[in-house]
Amino acid sequence: MNWYQDSLIDEGVIISSRIRLARNLKKYPFPIKINNEQAKVMIEEAKGSIINDRTVLSNQFRFYQSESLSQIEKLSLLENHCISPEFINGNMNRGLLLKNDESISIMLNEEDHVRIQTISPGDNIDMAWDLADKTDNLIEEILEYAFDQDLGYLTSCPTNTGTGLRASYMVHIPMLEKSEQLTAIVQSIGKFGMTVRGIHGEGTQPLGSIYQISNQMTMGKSETEIIEVLKNVTVQVIERENIIRESTIAQQKEELQDQVYRAYGILAHCRKISCNEALSLLSQLRFGYITGLLELDKPKTNIYQMMMNIQPGHIQMKAGKNLSGAERDRLRADYIRGAL
Amino acid sequence: MNWYQDSLIDEGVIISSRIRLARNLKKYPFPIKINNEQAKVMIEEAKGSIINDRTVLSNQFRFYQSESLSQIEKLSLLENHCISPEFINGNMNRGLLLKNDESISIMLNEEDHVRIQTISPGDNIDMAWDLADKTDNLIEEILEYAFDQDLGYLTSCPTNTGTGLRASYMVHIPMLEKSEQLTAIVQSIGKFGMTVRGIHGEGTQPLGSIYQISNQMTMGKSETEIIEVLKNVTVQVIERENIIRESTIAQQKEELQDQVYRAYGILAHCRKISCNEALSLLSQLRFGYITGLLELDKPKTNIYQMMMNIQPGHIQMKAGKNLSGAERDRLRADYIRGAL
Repeated sequence: MNWYQDSLIDEGVIISSRIRLARNLKKYPFPIKINNEQAKVMIEEAKGSIINDRTVLSNQFRFYQSESLSQIEKLSLLENHCISPEFINGNMNRGLLLKNDESISIMLNEEDHVRIQTISPGDNIDMAWDLADKTDNLIEEILEYAFDQDLGYLTSCPTNTGTGLRASYMVHIPMLEKSEQLTAIVQSIGKFGMTVRGIHGEGTQPLGSIYQISNQMTMGKSETEIIEVLKNVTVQVIERENIIRESTIAQQKEELQDQVYRAYGILAHCRKISCNEALSLLSQLRFGYITGLLELDKPKTNIYQMMMNIQPGHIQMKAGKNLSGAERDRLRADYIRGAL
Repeated sequence: MNWYQDSLIDEGVIISSRIRLARNLKKYPFPIKINNEQAKVMIEEAKGSIINDRTVLSNQFRFYQSESLSQIEKLSLLENHCISPEFINGNMNRGLLLKNDESISIMLNEEDHVRIQTISPGDNIDMAWDLADKTDNLIEEILEYAFDQDLGYLTSCPTNTGTGLRASYMVHIPMLEKSEQLTAIVQSIGKFGMTVRGIHGEGTQPLGSIYQISNQMTMGKSETEIIEVLKNVTVQVIERENIIRESTIAQQKEELQDQVYRAYGILAHCRKISCNEALSLLSQLRFGYITGLLELDKPKTNIYQMMMNIQPGHIQMKAGKNLSGAERDRLRADYIRGAL
């Protein structure tokens, strides 16, 4: 079972909890300076630190060379948050270690030599942190990280130097998004060193009312302190979302109910649909199921999983070939009808 | 079974065939000049000519006094085309004779003393004409019509003088409506003395892509000649509609199929819906079933009947009380979900 098949991801505002650790190996130039030969050796060494280990954890990883991945595979991995948009760009030698349930991915030679990322379903940031910490130790047993006694872990971008940690929650906040309170909340979160971003991180658009709340600075605080602030800030966001939900449902229940049932009706019957429209309607469906406005049996597939499965990479992965936009729109509608 | 329960009404472009005869009784002033006392006597006499007759046909009529009908009942009768918008207006004494299957209605003291109207499901104008002619004879056996040897039947409005006949087809032409050809067709039909109007006749808006094609002049031609021209003109309209259907389906089948399935999805799941939106979506459904684009079992209730049942009068008749717009929108959605 992959992490996103857990029913926890469709139970509340929080979809998933994520930890990312940025690390670099002491004996290699940073990725911006590394040449292709050095990169190959570095990737092999980092890969070996996991794969050659004999623990239960390390046996669950598979290794992928970036050049051996097709564009569709890369897109699909990006949509699942296993790799970053940057991993796809350029012709750099890159590697990916992926745990079989996709809860841990380790990008090699992305912006930093090693980027450990762990995801847990629902509100489970401590579990994600624990996984990331264990993975980090596994590598550190074998390889020496670039570390400075005063600064902490050294990274390509100074904003990551220190703990190298980015802790984040992926949240679904359709009511807050519609309200005029989101901008104010983003601002007040900033004061705590936290930020709200789109679905694929920095500079990306929010889709399906899904946002990432994460820390901006990684220096000057311990990992546990950063995670604590993130938790506190996110509790506030959830509370605001829930307050608006309750008051809107109290005032316009029929209106909202009609909206979610129409979203269901369109998804369950349409013959073609764009990715953006589908994400927006699935967002309404998730809202409908969680609030109880949609009084129908939940589909077997999580709504969030459906949100990933309808994206261009996934649709083309399933078809096993490149598809035109029109073909994707048709197969997307077929998939959704089947899933509902 | 009422005429609109016949499956014929949802089988092609033509929904129904209608005949209207305008007649006045010789011994009374025309409705515009008649006083209340005279109107009462006139209505009684006209009513008697039908009700007191001992034929099988006359036994199937019920009589309604306009004052004894509630606003909701009047609205509902209007929506079923049993009475005209004019019948509802003003405080005139008016009467209505209605056959139990609603295929014949006789308005008394509307614009003329006697307005006979017959409707047959589908393409059956000859059957409607036969019914109207029989009813006309039934009355004429007892009462003397205002008739001039040169002019023919005399009527309040000179455009009806002559045969007093309006023959019409109610047609569903969604593709022609969307194309730019409708205006041209309306113009060319005019040359044959025919006209295209909205759903409730003169000056009313087309709803759900439904139009009435009918003769404009009633003088100078015999009833059979008028009906013949109407038939010829309507065949042209149907042919144009079908040509556009075929070419559009050939070019954009998926697009159209998606539209009709979305219409179905919304109708089958929405929790509230306005009358205009429902008519527009039901029109797409009718188009979808007839063209085979919608590959679902037809509902038990005819789509056209549903189009009448969702109108404000019918919704309130069913509820047995006056309802606000919001209440109607809710009950309309409930009714449609049930019917589909």
